[in-house]
Amino acid sequence: MSDLDRGRAARLMAARGIDALVLFQPEAFRYATGLDTGAAGMWRRGGASVALVPADTRMPMAAILADHALHFGPQPGHALELMTHPIWIDYVDYTHSGGDVLEGLGSAYRAQGLARPQFPPRPETFDAAAVFGLLHDLLCDRGLGRARIGVDLEFLPAADFALLRRLLPTARWSDGSDVLRRLRAIKTPREIACLRQASEASEAGLAHMAARARPGLTRSALERLWRDGAEAHAARAGQTISGLRAGISVGANLVSSDPVLATGDLVKADMGVAIGGYLSDGTRTFSLGPAPQAARDLFTVLEESFDAGAALLRPGTPLGEVHAAVLDRARRLGLASYQRGHFGHSVGASCGSEEWPFISAGNPEPIEPGMVLAFETPFYAHGLGALMIEDQFLITREGAEPMNRLPRGLTRLGQDMPLTV
Amino acid sequence: MSDLDRGRAARLMAARGIDALVLFQPEAFRYATGLDTGAAGMWRRGGASVALVPADTRMPMAAILADHALHFGPQPGHALELMTHPIWIDYVDYTHSGGDVLEGLGSAYRAQGLARPQFPPRPETFDAAAVFGLLHDLLCDRGLGRARIGVDLEFLPAADFALLRRLLPTARWSDGSDVLRRLRAIKTPREIACLRQASEASEAGLAHMAARARPGLTRSALERLWRDGAEAHAARAGQTISGLRAGISVGANLVSSDPVLATGDLVKADMGVAIGGYLSDGTRTFSLGPAPQAARDLFTVLEESFDAGAALLRPGTPLGEVHAAVLDRARRLGLASYQRGHFGHSVGASCGSEEWPFISAGNPEPIEPGMVLAFETPFYAHGLGALMIEDQFLITREGAEPMNRLPRGLTRLGQDMPLTV
Repeated sequence: MSDLDRGRAARLMAARGIDALVLFQPEAFRYATGLDTGAAGMWRRGGASVALVPADTRMPMAAILADHALHFGPQPGHALELMTHPIWIDYVDYTHSGGDVLEGLGSAYRAQGLARPQFPPRPETFDAAAVFGLLHDLLCDRGLGRARIGVDLEFLPAADFALLRRLLPTARWSDGSDVLRRLRAIKTPREIACLRQASEASEAGLAHMAARARPGLTRSALERLWRDGAEAHAARAGQTISGLRAGISVGANLVSSDPVLATGDLVKADMGVAIGGYLSDGTRTFSLGPAPQAARDLFTVLEESFDAGAALLRPGTPLGEVHAAVLDRARRLGLASYQRGHFGHSVGASCGSEEWPFISAGNPEPIEPGMVLAFETPFYAHGLGALMIEDQFLITREGAEPMNRLPRGLTRLGQDMPLTV
Repeated sequence: MSDLDRGRAARLMAARGIDALVLFQPEAFRYATGLDTGAAGMWRRGGASVALVPADTRMPMAAILADHALHFGPQPGHALELMTHPIWIDYVDYTHSGGDVLEGLGSAYRAQGLARPQFPPRPETFDAAAVFGLLHDLLCDRGLGRARIGVDLEFLPAADFALLRRLLPTARWSDGSDVLRRLRAIKTPREIACLRQASEASEAGLAHMAARARPGLTRSALERLWRDGAEAHAARAGQTISGLRAGISVGANLVSSDPVLATGDLVKADMGVAIGGYLSDGTRTFSLGPAPQAARDLFTVLEESFDAGAALLRPGTPLGEVHAAVLDRARRLGLASYQRGHFGHSVGASCGSEEWPFISAGNPEPIEPGMVLAFETPFYAHGLGALMIEDQFLITREGAEPMNRLPRGLTRLGQDMPLTV
């Protein structure tokens, strides 16, 4: 299912004089078409799959997809024009064959019109030039052969863009990354549901880890406890986890490669679970036994700074105001020299766990309904430990709704965590 | 530790008239410098880190790295010129501070010369233009300001390459991807050890999974069994797994989203474990109870085709000859219409589990000592199942040494697997 809003896309393209978007990034392709690029996307090169999004909403979107991915992925919607290209993997449908397997396979091949010698050799991996040729035909069929095309040039490798320009010299290419970024920042209900489910699974993992943490566990062992809890939660909820991202620090020595948990240690767990590619981002900080007074003092500064910023999370606030409020509060409470580039970011299913826009200094971008923002107040003090609070907020028409349910406070390990809601 | 052979790099650059390589891909940066790009690499954009490899071997290599990554990653070797750039994350060394935490942090900041107002704000994420400015200074210092520079343009996003060319207009940029690819294809002993350890952990996982598989398990449950076995093996060996890649198919219906194991099913497990970023690739095929006769017949074809190709894996053989031998044998044994783009590929620590060169039709590239090749004979027959044999071979001066120890045959699940060595 596409998560791209054709109407918003049309308005954003019109403002930039773009006639169509052509998207190559596997994540952008899935966003626009609902289809999975499949194995050919592993190299993150241009041409494994291509999405065409015309500015004219009366024209259907189009996709160029690997034949193999068509067998395995979700079926394309009927509002999508689909072309396929062969990749290196052979596949036969043996469902309706019987008898001897090799004869049966022969007839399965024949049923697909694949009997030698009609069946051409498959390419080494995939044939980008052939795919760009299909794109050329598609653009010409749509009357877009000389149009102004916005491409995701923040993804497309320069070598692939050079080939594209050589093979399709009449199109007027420009960078469509900004349009794509703005589209992605406003989520559909489906995307919001994925991010909520992912956040819930991650928090179930944190509660599982917190209840079972004990002296002597390594960071890897804590990660496994979190993963076990998150996976069990997802299985109970009938969801499939598509990825995991763990950022745990243990103890005062932030540069230790696999530290072992000891009494008095801080544990910062900055974790993400992906559901359908949508990666959550949330952080809690724990201590094993009583935290040192210094850590408690510092955590209080981070909590108050968090509250100062969270109060501004509502439609219309420029993101830079949130940044200023957090930094100002932290400095007035004693972190006189604290600097940080951003106190949060959008989340979604792009590349990297942090997405545009950022809660950064002087950022004039306004918060908008439908955004899902991870808002965070981190502090890394080698010799004391890492401390951080991070929640995922859905921006609504009225304000902001946290997706997290675990209490934000500095929490003792080795006990069950209550949920706040 | 760098895995890049400066002598080979010099020869490859000389043959192409290149004076230096400038590498942006996080995996290429680590390969050249031994350093980890860190958090700034998450977006896979240009400028998070940069490696400079001059063709002149008397000149040291240079790296531009995020300040944060310098705290957390391995320490740079002394044969590397290092420059840093600030990213969004603040970090203070509190080790030598005492007393009140906030005062203590203030003095930690002062000890680093970071006291306000001298301390500049941090960028939103990282500042690619500033990094390219450092690269400009570095190239000019080395007398390379107008040199011919090979860049990894199969990675660098077109938008970032455009900025690079605008800010450094005097350098003569070209695509250095081919040089990088050829360097990476020949492994150092350290890289070979990583790939061997990774393959061993993955096979320990397969044996663990095979012994415990039973009717009713989902594909996800089989994956978890594999992962548990691989992680336990790595922990016993004192190794840290840096990534996992699972490709399990269960049963005759290849397009089912989470199939459940039943008697008579084939299970194809194409798995990879990463150690230090080096991702193994190996596959075994199993059956629960006796496999259907059709599957046994087909597997025999794949085994004989595998043997035909494996016999040619030695220095000097053009990769295309291996492809031809496999395809010829498979067709003569009954798969008359079989097509496949490649029967294997190099493995390593780049992007994607399959690396250049490929065992593909007509490929004239000769096999060379020091390559590690995954060689595979796969067959996907929807309605019967997926079947595949894949081993990882180290190419030696004399021939090829398989890194796999599990028997290649079609193996019954629910029993312990003997190792062949």
